[in-house]
Amino acid sequence: MQVFNEEAVKNAYHIGDAIQDIEALFKDMEGVRQAQRIVISTGEGAKSMLYMPCIHLNKQLGIIKITSITPENPDHHRPTTQGTIIVTDLKTGEHVASIDGSYLTRLRTGALSGIATKYLSRENAQTIGMIGTGGMAFEQLIANLEVRPIQRILLYNQTKDKAEDLKARILKTYSDYEVEIVDDVETLVTQSDIINCQTSSAEPVFDADTVKPGTHINGIGSYRPDMKEIDNRILPKADKVIFDDIEGVKKEAGEIIEANEKGIFKFEDYDGDLKSLSLNGTLQRSNDESITVFKCVGAAYFDLAVALGAYERLTKNQ
Amino acid sequence: MQVFNEEAVKNAYHIGDAIQDIEALFKDMEGVRQAQRIVISTGEGAKSMLYMPCIHLNKQLGIIKITSITPENPDHHRPTTQGTIIVTDLKTGEHVASIDGSYLTRLRTGALSGIATKYLSRENAQTIGMIGTGGMAFEQLIANLEVRPIQRILLYNQTKDKAEDLKARILKTYSDYEVEIVDDVETLVTQSDIINCQTSSAEPVFDADTVKPGTHINGIGSYRPDMKEIDNRILPKADKVIFDDIEGVKKEAGEIIEANEKGIFKFEDYDGDLKSLSLNGTLQRSNDESITVFKCVGAAYFDLAVALGAYERLTKNQ
Repeated sequence: MQVFNEEAVKNAYHIGDAIQDIEALFKDMEGVRQAQRIVISTGEGAKSMLYMPCIHLNKQLGIIKITSITPENPDHHRPTTQGTIIVTDLKTGEHVASIDGSYLTRLRTGALSGIATKYLSRENAQTIGMIGTGGMAFEQLIANLEVRPIQRILLYNQTKDKAEDLKARILKTYSDYEVEIVDDVETLVTQSDIINCQTSSAEPVFDADTVKPGTHINGIGSYRPDMKEIDNRILPKADKVIFDDIEGVKKEAGEIIEANEKGIFKFEDYDGDLKSLSLNGTLQRSNDESITVFKCVGAAYFDLAVALGAYERLTKNQ
Repeated sequence: MQVFNEEAVKNAYHIGDAIQDIEALFKDMEGVRQAQRIVISTGEGAKSMLYMPCIHLNKQLGIIKITSITPENPDHHRPTTQGTIIVTDLKTGEHVASIDGSYLTRLRTGALSGIATKYLSRENAQTIGMIGTGGMAFEQLIANLEVRPIQRILLYNQTKDKAEDLKARILKTYSDYEVEIVDDVETLVTQSDIINCQTSSAEPVFDADTVKPGTHINGIGSYRPDMKEIDNRILPKADKVIFDDIEGVKKEAGEIIEANEKGIFKFEDYDGDLKSLSLNGTLQRSNDESITVFKCVGAAYFDLAVALGAYERLTKNQ
């Protein structure tokens, strides 16, 4: 078994690859088999182990992503979420690789927003507003930069220090961009063509009434019923509402579950999943005044797409 | 992540360790959490991936065993079953090791028979008969040698060449033993104090009527409802019938499922599981004339015991 750490994966596999590999998988889903993920509680609160297997019959490769959630880790300067992906060659039955899953998970989640932005946002979108500047934010941002002619980046975070950290990191790699930290969310919302939310907030992080026509919103932070970062009053106003995976959203996306319960927006009112958006031209925004929303919780087949893509690139010249 | 291949595990971890670690876990099961295993079909027939996670709260370590079953592999001189075990440190959330799971699986299955033999067979058992001399047989044998003063080993296999292979392997390591290949099962059955079955037979591999008083039988081969190696007419004659894990047996042990359906022997007629046998002196054989039977299908917590035992030994001096 070969072991590829985060550094190796970062060198071999980038956001453009992830976007391309996920969209390629959408055209080849017939041979994909996944099982319900397993969750075992390993301590207090959210402390747990998650196991998400998925296989690709046509490629005769299978993966399982193994993720630990250790809520007390930030106190010890370690990440809360740590993933590893085991790749099995189904032709020979051999377990061929262990690939660090933490960067790949951030990258695939970024890629999902990137695909949504590519089809839903205005083509000339120039300003992106990032609400939440924690661990997932950088890959979310670069995925949007990959697909739209962004020039200006607005950052908002409750703890301003973290926004400063992200700003520094952005400018290190992307010095041509205008990066601004804003003190209030409304400034960000009213000036952004794309709003990208990545928080674990239990309350809406923006006010739906302040969202201007033509805005596209990506919501990737809420992944539990008690998390509700998107103001769900935006949903009935939206021209298009796309979910990455309807089954996952029904179980995990707090603000959508609440909207469904309160009758603000029923699950069945959604316009399609990310696969349909990618494959089907009719799900794109109607016009430049439309508001569009993408909500994402993740699914094992997205991990499959990026893990196999990374595996192929990591082993191509061996 | 550290990778330990079969060679490394073989050097560090032996049958006596596996027996000891499984029996130690029986005394400490309160902190063990396992989930239903996941099976994904990956092709024709039995071709599949199996995922079996299990954690030990008290030790703050968790494992998942990932097993591929590739029925066409023997045609290409590769093993049908290939396993790897990923160990996660739950204190830090780090995925610390990948341990080859093929030898460990054979060893833990051997250890289960060893524990059964230790408590059920006559103390002076000197002759063991091995029915089936395939991949699992060697570790089954050495587990029995570990716990009883065996002097004579009888081998039976449908394909005699495989019996010759096993005989040569035994004599290489254990040259003091008398090893004989027999041409018919009845000879083996009537001369053995312990009968150890490890076949994938759909039919009984011996005739219950030929089993002499005082015999102990281990059945480890049947792990699917269509596999029935033990003649289940032996069950009502037995003084003690022990299952490794009742829930697994109900789902997977073909001959026991059939016995239950036909009313030959009901599931609830069993005397106890392996844990009770190990912890509770009252489940041992009544006298030297008793027939005793142990049937085993495996469970994730047995893998947990040997994987953590191996991990601790492999990393102890680092």
